[in-house]
Amino acid sequence: MPSFNEQHFQELDISFRKNLINSLMGARPAVLIATANAHGKTNLAVFSQIVHVGANPPLCGILFRPDSVERHTLTNIRETGWFSLNLLSSEYAENVHQTSARYGADSSEFEAVGLDPEFTNDYLAPTVKQAHIKAICQLKEEIPVVSNGTLLVIGAIKWIGIEDECLRSDGSVNHYSGKSLAVCGLDDYASLQHVARFSYAKPDRKPEKLMP
Amino acid sequence: MPSFNEQHFQELDISFRKNLINSLMGARPAVLIATANAHGKTNLAVFSQIVHVGANPPLCGILFRPDSVERHTLTNIRETGWFSLNLLSSEYAENVHQTSARYGADSSEFEAVGLDPEFTNDYLAPTVKQAHIKAICQLKEEIPVVSNGTLLVIGAIKWIGIEDECLRSDGSVNHYSGKSLAVCGLDDYASLQHVARFSYAKPDRKPEKLMP
Repeated sequence: MPSFNEQHFQELDISFRKNLINSLMGARPAVLIATANAHGKTNLAVFSQIVHVGANPPLCGILFRPDSVERHTLTNIRETGWFSLNLLSSEYAENVHQTSARYGADSSEFEAVGLDPEFTNDYLAPTVKQAHIKAICQLKEEIPVVSNGTLLVIGAIKWIGIEDECLRSDGSVNHYSGKSLAVCGLDDYASLQHVARFSYAKPDRKPEKLMP
Repeated sequence: MPSFNEQHFQELDISFRKNLINSLMGARPAVLIATANAHGKTNLAVFSQIVHVGANPPLCGILFRPDSVERHTLTNIRETGWFSLNLLSSEYAENVHQTSARYGADSSEFEAVGLDPEFTNDYLAPTVKQAHIKAICQLKEEIPVVSNGTLLVIGAIKWIGIEDECLRSDGSVNHYSGKSLAVCGLDDYASLQHVARFSYAKPDRKPEKLMP
């Protein structure tokens, strides 16, 4: 099995190392974060470093890098206190990827990539009309990562919209019918193929397969 | 589109809410974290709340919940300062899920679920022999999330092992040939299907499709 150690990391071509470490652990959800600034100007950017933090209260976490196009998103979140997470199906892969281009402060990525903002109730962040799964979140906590200057932003989920066909009767989300888009590294988009759903694991017996 | 707001969250059945929030944002890598305690006794547990923190130096982040079977893993990481991340293919879905059972301190999940520990050089954490992608990490930083008592553990990646067929010439990892296992929520395992790989996005043109 080919391997790399610390010495190799230092000697590797920068782009090779970036690709390797970014894509190492496989696919993450390709989530569009939608925001608006204090004047209502909208912004849209793709993120994949998103974690589930808790179900009660519902909390999510997003890791921001300090030196990227993500800055408009973070500025807007701080300005209004709100953002939304949006999952699109695989047919929108190109639109989703295109939000990572460095558009100027004058243009909205919504218009540039051909997606539509939609405001719900009085929430200060738009969602993406074309998304089959959306969550509107309020900024709750900012946590600096000392090791490399990244920032973990914790959001409290305040509203969820989800297409009927994606919601199972037990509350779990069916990401196969909605063909939720995932991404490996920065540019390699994937959809999901069902393998198996298992019952709660117990030490004294094998797990049972559940209906997907 | 069916929707849920804060009022609904409070009224929802606990299990329904847990399923909904856990699985909301789609698939994450189903990663086996392997550790040993100070006496060399091994432990194995499945985690999906893993983020890429940085490529230079190579850093990863894992979110730990305070009240779960994950505790043996966290105790061992603190005891030795080391852990490994292991990705298995979809044919091992049942073995991976079974590591989430609450085995007692006397038994190792490796033996219980039928996987083999393997030690590399002098690193104090084992890897999983059957994994096609593995990374050995050193504990770097522990960051408490005040909002709900979870803990973000930052690890410095010190060694990577990867099957030949999973490594592309540009350094990126091909998770299709290795059929890397992903998981939606707590129990719904998936593999990845390639959609498209795109060139670096620029504001003035459409992205080009790259070879997968």
